Amino acid sequence: MISTERLEQRIEALAQIGKTKEGGVTRIALTKEYRQGLDLITEWMQEAGMTVRLDQAGNLIGRKEGTSSGLKAVAIGSHVDSVGNGGKYDGTVGVIAGIEVVQHLKEEGISNKRPIEVIAFCEEEGSRFQSGGVFGSRAMVGKLTNEDLEVTDSNGDSRYEVLKSFNLDPDNIDKAIRTKEELELYLEMHIEQGPILIKENSPVGIVTAITGLSLTEIIFEGEANHVGATPMDLRYDALLGASETAIAVEEIINSFGGDAVGTVATMDVEPSQVNIIPGKVSIVIDIRDTDLEKREAILLALEKRVKEICRHRKLKYTITSKLRANPAKAASHILETMREKSEKLSIKTFEMPSGGGHDAQLMAEITDMGMIFVRSENGSHNPKEFAKAEDMKLGADLLASTAIHYINR
Amino acid sequence: MISTERLEQRIEALAQIGKTKEGGVTRIALTKEYRQGLDLITEWMQEAGMTVRLDQAGNLIGRKEGTSSGLKAVAIGSHVDSVGNGGKYDGTVGVIAGIEVVQHLKEEGISNKRPIEVIAFCEEEGSRFQSGGVFGSRAMVGKLTNEDLEVTDSNGDSRYEVLKSFNLDPDNIDKAIRTKEELELYLEMHIEQGPILIKENSPVGIVTAITGLSLTEIIFEGEANHVGATPMDLRYDALLGASETAIAVEEIINSFGGDAVGTVATMDVEPSQVNIIPGKVSIVIDIRDTDLEKREAILLALEKRVKEICRHRKLKYTITSKLRANPAKAASHILETMREKSEKLSIKTFEMPSGGGHDAQLMAEITDMGMIFVRSENGSHNPKEFAKAEDMKLGADLLASTAIHYINR
Repeated sequence: MISTERLEQRIEALAQIGKTKEGGVTRIALTKEYRQGLDLITEWMQEAGMTVRLDQAGNLIGRKEGTSSGLKAVAIGSHVDSVGNGGKYDGTVGVIAGIEVVQHLKEEGISNKRPIEVIAFCEEEGSRFQSGGVFGSRAMVGKLTNEDLEVTDSNGDSRYEVLKSFNLDPDNIDKAIRTKEELELYLEMHIEQGPILIKENSPVGIVTAITGLSLTEIIFEGEANHVGATPMDLRYDALLGASETAIAVEEIINSFGGDAVGTVATMDVEPSQVNIIPGKVSIVIDIRDTDLEKREAILLALEKRVKEICRHRKLKYTITSKLRANPAKAASHILETMREKSEKLSIKTFEMPSGGGHDAQLMAEITDMGMIFVRSENGSHNPKEFAKAEDMKLGADLLASTAIHYINR
Repeated sequence: MISTERLEQRIEALAQIGKTKEGGVTRIALTKEYRQGLDLITEWMQEAGMTVRLDQAGNLIGRKEGTSSGLKAVAIGSHVDSVGNGGKYDGTVGVIAGIEVVQHLKEEGISNKRPIEVIAFCEEEGSRFQSGGVFGSRAMVGKLTNEDLEVTDSNGDSRYEVLKSFNLDPDNIDKAIRTKEELELYLEMHIEQGPILIKENSPVGIVTAITGLSLTEIIFEGEANHVGATPMDLRYDALLGASETAIAVEEIINSFGGDAVGTVATMDVEPSQVNIIPGKVSIVIDIRDTDLEKREAILLALEKRVKEICRHRKLKYTITSKLRANPAKAASHILETMREKSEKLSIKTFEMPSGGGHDAQLMAEITDMGMIFVRSENGSHNPKEFAKAEDMKLGADLLASTAIHYINR
């Protein structure tokens, strides 16, 4: 049986490592706290009957071999790194539930023809190196570039150096790559991070697709003149260009509708002095949709609008695409299995896209993917994120039934 | 004669003290460079026949006694502190021109019944202690508070301590106060800091009034949710509230028209992470007008609009008035004198308000005030600010004629 009590205890035990005074967790990838977290996870994996290894990219992989040889593995994964002062549940529920599934096999004497793996991916959050996150899963699907090893953290240490000092082997990071020949499918359970399951009054979500994230940087350049001495009609105020763009993002997204979301999440103003009109403003815009063509159409519409705003305001601007991730669809046979199993288990589910990126999105590049959401209060990435133990249990039940469906076929 | 060559040489000589690699000047108040600047100014004042003292607030005061006793003085002033990497002309042209006026009296054998003073005010820029500037002139008109001595610089040193280590006497700072019984009028020459004289093709401006600066801080609070997982209609995005407000400031100011200017000069976004909807944004809005009632009406209109924006977006907000300076009008008899003298000297002038604050604004609290602008390229507070020597000469000619008009009556 999936144990509600054990799930809850393990969430709490892991939350002690890097606990913050606000009741949250700071367990940034590749730190001392992260090592302590991996040590605890390793114990639990071993207790569930898995052998454990850390790959060259810092992914912790527990594996229970199958009874038949030569079959591809069923993998379950998520992550145990956190953002700064994040919550207890983001990532951890998926790793702990994955271990619980394998523990369940052991305790119930359920055999598995296929190997089953539980993976704690390294640095999903990207809080340490600000290079977009999902580092471990990108390493696993062969999507790293040299730049990924060169980026530095706030101490000025490169990821290469940090991996080295974590006793990893960045020179052989290619050895972390897995292929479609090794993996039958990949499952991930994660808290929802948004308010939809609460609104729909469903404890569990079945993820139909993971949105394709794009990050676009726009730098507006005007003239940093004196706020008092420069009449309104002789100004080139970069902040007004950026502000109009922020409002335009909202308008354009709302006009496209559907799953699309768009956000100006950062705005850096120069010189940001009370006496000076902002001469330069940089913003990063996050635009996502589960439909790649639609997202690109939104980006085009935005670019057109920025051009108009800057022509009108006589500002210079540069637009740089910083990231364009592909959306990923859940495999239809996994969706079908999850529908059947949740009905059988009488779990009320809601089918929805994931607006957040996940390791599952990367794993979809090499294998069939399925994802389960657990209802969570107060979003994620903050000390107040909260998933009820009962909801985690229902999610883990669905995860287990789905995995068991595949491990013997 | 007012010497163009000497004006230019002295500007350059002073610009050597605190010279930056960009060709600008960093001569922050009460530093070693500031002391060197005062030493040079002192030499020039003495050469012009003045006796020199430093008051308790760090104002350097040169004075040439008048031939009649018991008459109030004609004072000319400005400042020789700069912002970080500022220009050569801001402040310095006024002090150097003031000294030139007294040198002119000496060289031409013009006697003065009234005493004449040249004042280099301490910390006009407010770059060191970030407490709004015009420290020395506030001290002189008795407008300091205890807080002004308690504020600290970026090293954590209080202004009290810094004044002490500059060998000043902050315990007796009240002794820096001057009264209307001592001063007949105050004149100041300053570079324009804006583009109006260039646009009007006039080398010299006659300032009709100095704008009344207000600084208003608004803090918008929403919810810092996940950018991907939070649908557009379930967001409380503080940055969108701040952006709408920035646009609203421009709209409201343009609808009031006239001398009014308004700027959102700083915007601090929290958490300013690519993955998170901004939960909290602080802005500081600078709104100025030469008419106090109109400025207050603008502030009321803005407050009303912010309330609407935040109601619509379901954001919390707090509005705090950080500073509300009084506008100051130039004395009409000084304006009349400047008009006559500029006509007689064939100097093309343009009458305009000052959108920047100046020591003259404070001095207007205790005496009649008049101000002259000199055309300047590239605004101010940057290494590229530039006033032509010919324009400075014309400004100094008008300053001298105006001062001479008053010193014997």
